[in-house]
Amino acid sequence: MPVDPQRVIDDLNELRALTGDANGAQRVAWTPTWLKAREWFLGKLKGLPVEHHLDAAGNRWVTLAGESPKALVLGSHLDSVPNGGWLDGCLGVIVGLEVLRSFAEDFNGKPPFTVRLVDWADEEGARFGRSLFGSAAFAGKQTIEADRARTDRDGVALEAALRECGVDIERIGDAAAEQKDIAAYLELHIEQGPVLGSLQLPLAAVLGTKGVERHAITFYGQEAHSGSTPMNARKDALAAAAKLALEIRAIAKKHPDAVCTMGSVKTFPGIVTAVVGRCEATLDQRDLSADVLAAILAEAKSASERFAAEEGCTVEWSKIWSIEPIPFDPSLIAFCEEAIRGVAGTSHSIPSGPLHDAAEVARLGVPTVMMFVQSLHGISHNKIEDTKLEHLELAVAAFAALAKKTLGSLAKS
Amino acid sequence: MPVDPQRVIDDLNELRALTGDANGAQRVAWTPTWLKAREWFLGKLKGLPVEHHLDAAGNRWVTLAGESPKALVLGSHLDSVPNGGWLDGCLGVIVGLEVLRSFAEDFNGKPPFTVRLVDWADEEGARFGRSLFGSAAFAGKQTIEADRARTDRDGVALEAALRECGVDIERIGDAAAEQKDIAAYLELHIEQGPVLGSLQLPLAAVLGTKGVERHAITFYGQEAHSGSTPMNARKDALAAAAKLALEIRAIAKKHPDAVCTMGSVKTFPGIVTAVVGRCEATLDQRDLSADVLAAILAEAKSASERFAAEEGCTVEWSKIWSIEPIPFDPSLIAFCEEAIRGVAGTSHSIPSGPLHDAAEVARLGVPTVMMFVQSLHGISHNKIEDTKLEHLELAVAAFAALAKKTLGSLAKS
Repeated sequence: MPVDPQRVIDDLNELRALTGDANGAQRVAWTPTWLKAREWFLGKLKGLPVEHHLDAAGNRWVTLAGESPKALVLGSHLDSVPNGGWLDGCLGVIVGLEVLRSFAEDFNGKPPFTVRLVDWADEEGARFGRSLFGSAAFAGKQTIEADRARTDRDGVALEAALRECGVDIERIGDAAAEQKDIAAYLELHIEQGPVLGSLQLPLAAVLGTKGVERHAITFYGQEAHSGSTPMNARKDALAAAAKLALEIRAIAKKHPDAVCTMGSVKTFPGIVTAVVGRCEATLDQRDLSADVLAAILAEAKSASERFAAEEGCTVEWSKIWSIEPIPFDPSLIAFCEEAIRGVAGTSHSIPSGPLHDAAEVARLGVPTVMMFVQSLHGISHNKIEDTKLEHLELAVAAFAALAKKTLGSLAKS
Repeated sequence: MPVDPQRVIDDLNELRALTGDANGAQRVAWTPTWLKAREWFLGKLKGLPVEHHLDAAGNRWVTLAGESPKALVLGSHLDSVPNGGWLDGCLGVIVGLEVLRSFAEDFNGKPPFTVRLVDWADEEGARFGRSLFGSAAFAGKQTIEADRARTDRDGVALEAALRECGVDIERIGDAAAEQKDIAAYLELHIEQGPVLGSLQLPLAAVLGTKGVERHAITFYGQEAHSGSTPMNARKDALAAAAKLALEIRAIAKKHPDAVCTMGSVKTFPGIVTAVVGRCEATLDQRDLSADVLAAILAEAKSASERFAAEEGCTVEWSKIWSIEPIPFDPSLIAFCEEAIRGVAGTSHSIPSGPLHDAAEVARLGVPTVMMFVQSLHGISHNKIEDTKLEHLELAVAAFAALAKKTLGSLAKS
């Protein structure tokens, strides 16, 4: 049975009507609306020859048992940010469901290899600030110690919210048991950026997720009266930060896929009548190559020191967070490109700037690839997020072809 | 009787011991410590042939009646910012007191013209955000409507704090009655900037207070994901603001005394993972020439529009506040320079970046001049504010000479 794009669209619309409002999707993990989305999803499994259960971290696993326990896993997440887009996350789950239906039919309920669909718990981290919660626990990268202190903006502890959903924070590491027999992982996701739109392409194979270096940078100058301090007597911490805000663009542009972002600047004392004595900025740098990432970090550090010296300031760096680049599997990338060419005539490969659950699976060593479908205007995490209907249809067909090809390849692996 | 610099120093030290602590001066207007300073000051008047009273805005007037009601006024303020310097404001009051003592003695209690000393109420505006409170009321520039809504950080209304000090907010405009017969106004103040220090000069005649143009500038770009948005697809509001933060320095440096300051920058959403969609900045521009002030404002506006366009952003300006340049009286400036030359061998004239009570008096049309004494390291509004003892002594002598020369000139005016 071929996949049915219309059924996917219908399912997406049903879910939107059930869990969205005028401001967008409201499927924030560990909330009643998210649980409602998951209930709806369980209803969709009726009549399929599958087993399903929640693992210890709240990930939902749906298993179509095959002749061999060796498993192909399709996955994504039903949870959204508040006022989120209608496709971010749930597209991958619902297309995965359609592929599962198709395999169940094609193989008369028993494919040669096991096929599983996973709905990861709390990819977004929207309520408690811990993204990739479920997939990290699955991958053995749970952070229970740090998670125990997490609260939402109303002061509710993550631990209590998990308990409400039947998850014991002390046991989330047990989700690693699900790793058994997994041979490949595939994930379809909306791009969340403007690259495919600018290239006028519907789909892309994803090369991996970019490594991230995230730092807090503080320039120390000398607070001074805006009226009484001549220009040449100033040690203006904002001036040093402003130079860096501009220089990081030149640094990034030396490399085709690198991005550097100064997302936050805070000035102290931060009043209209004082030269800035201290300026705190953040820097987020990403590239798929570890060497490029190290180079752009070193260049930014060196530039910040040069600018600090020019302005009579000093500068301090402090790491917020980092993750290494996570390349996807070359064979699966090739399958993905082939599947895209099959439906769209041409294919393209791009790295992912945002992280995804697939990154947690890939760094566990499971052969992994993602497919991106174009995001209109590159807008995501917003109620206006959308994808052309024809691109959604191509995505369903291409992802099904990728899954089929991958399943077929398991015999050789 | 010549003025006695040591008595000034002793008085300053007494006041510091009485109203300061380890963090600096604590004579914030409308607080018990300020009232204590004013009580101390009243005690210093004992034995002098003077009348004293508070006007309707809480300014303290001390009058040594002369043969003529035509009056020379010396003034400054006893109030300080929290954790302030030991000289800011009170130096002018205490040196004024010493000059008054000297005149009382010299003229046997009855100088040819009246000499008055004023301790302005709330020059700093530290508690309620309304600086030049008393001198503005005196000058007929009271802002009762706006002041009625002012509260301190604990929610105490300005109106209630005034009442505690015996001032009725509805009547503060009556302080204008004190304008009668005033023929000249002189004010000694610590520089609060680094210019005299860098020139290694003890004293300066002040040419006037610079005009101020104070604006809020908002750049609107496009919030975007730091990971998924290529560098060339961004509309980074911070980049436009950063260009302006640097360009205002080039704009200011075309003019010898102009200053331009970006004191506050706020980024929205202001998170490490998002390109800045909106950037709010403040700009404070000052010059003694109205033409220069208008030119640097126009240049900054034009630059902001150019940078916005370069970055795919838009920009909006909104005026926070402005005041015209207030030049001091040329004859009194010449007297001031002469008095400085008399004690220091050489003289220098500079504009004042900060506003002072003298600006309110001058824009009323009263011939006015200020004298600045060097501020060590250019630091003010801070407990480490200081002036060399020898410079304080020169200031006392020069200010007394200026007052004497001015008093003598009243016969001709």
